[in-house]
Amino acid sequence: MSERGFARAEYQARVTRAQAMMAQAGLGALLLTTEPEIRYFTGFLTRFWESPSRPWFLILPADGDPVAVIPAIGAALMGKTWVTDIRTWPAPQPEDEGVSLLADVLDEFGGPVGIPSGPETHLRMAQADFARLQGASAQVFRDDAGITARLRAVKSEAEIAKIAHACRIAGRAFARVPEIAGPGVALSRVFRDFQRLLLEDGADWVPYLAGGAGPLGYADVISPADDRALCAGDVLMLDTGAVRDGYFCDYDRNFAIGAPDARVVGAHARLLEAAQAGLAAARPGARACDVWAAMAAICGDDGGRLGHGLGMQLTEGLSLLPGDRTVLEPGMVITLEPGVATADGNILVHEENIVIRPGGPQILSPWASDLPRID
Amino acid sequence: MSERGFARAEYQARVTRAQAMMAQAGLGALLLTTEPEIRYFTGFLTRFWESPSRPWFLILPADGDPVAVIPAIGAALMGKTWVTDIRTWPAPQPEDEGVSLLADVLDEFGGPVGIPSGPETHLRMAQADFARLQGASAQVFRDDAGITARLRAVKSEAEIAKIAHACRIAGRAFARVPEIAGPGVALSRVFRDFQRLLLEDGADWVPYLAGGAGPLGYADVISPADDRALCAGDVLMLDTGAVRDGYFCDYDRNFAIGAPDARVVGAHARLLEAAQAGLAAARPGARACDVWAAMAAICGDDGGRLGHGLGMQLTEGLSLLPGDRTVLEPGMVITLEPGVATADGNILVHEENIVIRPGGPQILSPWASDLPRID
Repeated sequence: MSERGFARAEYQARVTRAQAMMAQAGLGALLLTTEPEIRYFTGFLTRFWESPSRPWFLILPADGDPVAVIPAIGAALMGKTWVTDIRTWPAPQPEDEGVSLLADVLDEFGGPVGIPSGPETHLRMAQADFARLQGASAQVFRDDAGITARLRAVKSEAEIAKIAHACRIAGRAFARVPEIAGPGVALSRVFRDFQRLLLEDGADWVPYLAGGAGPLGYADVISPADDRALCAGDVLMLDTGAVRDGYFCDYDRNFAIGAPDARVVGAHARLLEAAQAGLAAARPGARACDVWAAMAAICGDDGGRLGHGLGMQLTEGLSLLPGDRTVLEPGMVITLEPGVATADGNILVHEENIVIRPGGPQILSPWASDLPRID
Repeated sequence: MSERGFARAEYQARVTRAQAMMAQAGLGALLLTTEPEIRYFTGFLTRFWESPSRPWFLILPADGDPVAVIPAIGAALMGKTWVTDIRTWPAPQPEDEGVSLLADVLDEFGGPVGIPSGPETHLRMAQADFARLQGASAQVFRDDAGITARLRAVKSEAEIAKIAHACRIAGRAFARVPEIAGPGVALSRVFRDFQRLLLEDGADWVPYLAGGAGPLGYADVISPADDRALCAGDVLMLDTGAVRDGYFCDYDRNFAIGAPDARVVGAHARLLEAAQAGLAAARPGARACDVWAAMAAICGDDGGRLGHGLGMQLTEGLSLLPGDRTVLEPGMVITLEPGVATADGNILVHEENIVIRPGGPQILSPWASDLPRID
């Protein structure tokens, strides 16, 4: 379908912007090793990253197109992207896992070589191999001046359309939760069936699903489902990161199973109010901490963040926290994720996805207006 | 359900074995940062690793129980494991992302600190933070002498039971492929529906699905599905890594859509024969390269590996390659994954999962004996 992937111009624009920033930072090349970083500049999309056996490398030189230095098993798929300079080695080959090839290619282009080294990054290659690379290459390695993260923080219209699509898919699945949840149904069953609904409604895959259930909320939002059956009086929360064409949605919904506790009703109303306040505050020029403050004034401050950037990863970029002074720009996609304590160590959380626009935010998730009840 | 997780004795045995190896290697502590490494010693199971925003640390001292140094958001879930010493910081906090806390805890226990640094490993923390850690801690950091990888290579009976369970789930889903695939159905639709079947049949989630279809096979085995409709005469391949309670299966099946090309029939028969030869060779004392040779003698050598270890990750440990001299031991779980070229750059692959036993291998995937036809 034409909606898959991006036009070549999208990648070229990313490269051009990166190279302008590289020139400013005095970098001769970027060396990228992780899935989102490599996909951002190439469009290389595969679930094969699940296998840790092979490292993958992309070099973005100061001038010209990116060069892929990858295991031979990926040559056919990389060949379908706009990248034409593809160097391969027969991985796995632990005695030289692409290191000497990579060193040679880096030395073709020169340095200093910038490597993403800041928050949310890691180097996806063995530390021992990185030490070997530093020995084998004549280049100086340093951080990438945050270039990759800064570029990814502001989405193009084509990227926003993909996130919006993922959000619509989750919206359809959330609307069908009454089909799969109710008193007597095990939470693990609900999790399994909700993933099924997401797939039926158009998700390519479902990398993330969390949630919880209890009469006063849930103890945390990262636990896997257990086999306890839902009971009348529980509030059920499902929080999904579903993917369409490589882009995530990330939002949740709460459902009252039968008649909810008055404290849950009150807490949920406060969450919706806090999200609304966050929405009102999320304008270009406002800082992440301003949006945090607008929500915290209503839902309180338990130390947790109240939202974050969203895109090729479930969470990426800014945090809605008192210490994050990132200035919002049009094209930034963020989540609003207020949480409140109910009682006995339980919490209730609510999440929406929005994109910052010049005139004010645009809602991507269907905005929740109540606490749906399932009997 | 009682089948979830492991008894405390399982984790204690892992720690005891690790500490014996650490004593031999002269290590004062291990520092672990990735999902499988931390889960191996703790049982900490969550899909929250999908978010790159927070690093997680586990310290295994030379004596005593492991210490978790983790974001506060994970304290409740880590508190449900057998780990009692849990130190937290309010992440995300980029100005000090757990670094000073981690340095303090490492200095409590002493070094040298071993970090997994060999094949298939990476350090899941920002490189800039690792540099800060090395400055903030008094300890020497070095590699972990492969301890974590060596331990994980040999599975306990409880681990084997979980892999076997995942294999049975995939077996049920593969048996139902005729319900979802046939002439006119888009490959992307088949992928979506096959994930749904896996979930219905008991998978907790489906981190990996690859495949392909065409009259003579497929060009590679890592591409995502496209929207091309299956045609009579195609051979369809689905390869899944489905997870049950944190353990993977990893095997595939081919299906003839209508009457297959004679070259496909011949190639598939050769794959089954090669898998059988691999099975016969997979005995304790044989080397990974011996199993490779047994299969390559039948399916040929295109440079790719013909199988690998399997467990908490889709691929882990040994490779069935001419250069891998790892000696097979009872309890190793491996895949047999022969591939053959058909024509015009197409290949056909087949995969089974087995566990090495003293008297000979035990089959975990339902062993394929034919090329099922879907009309």
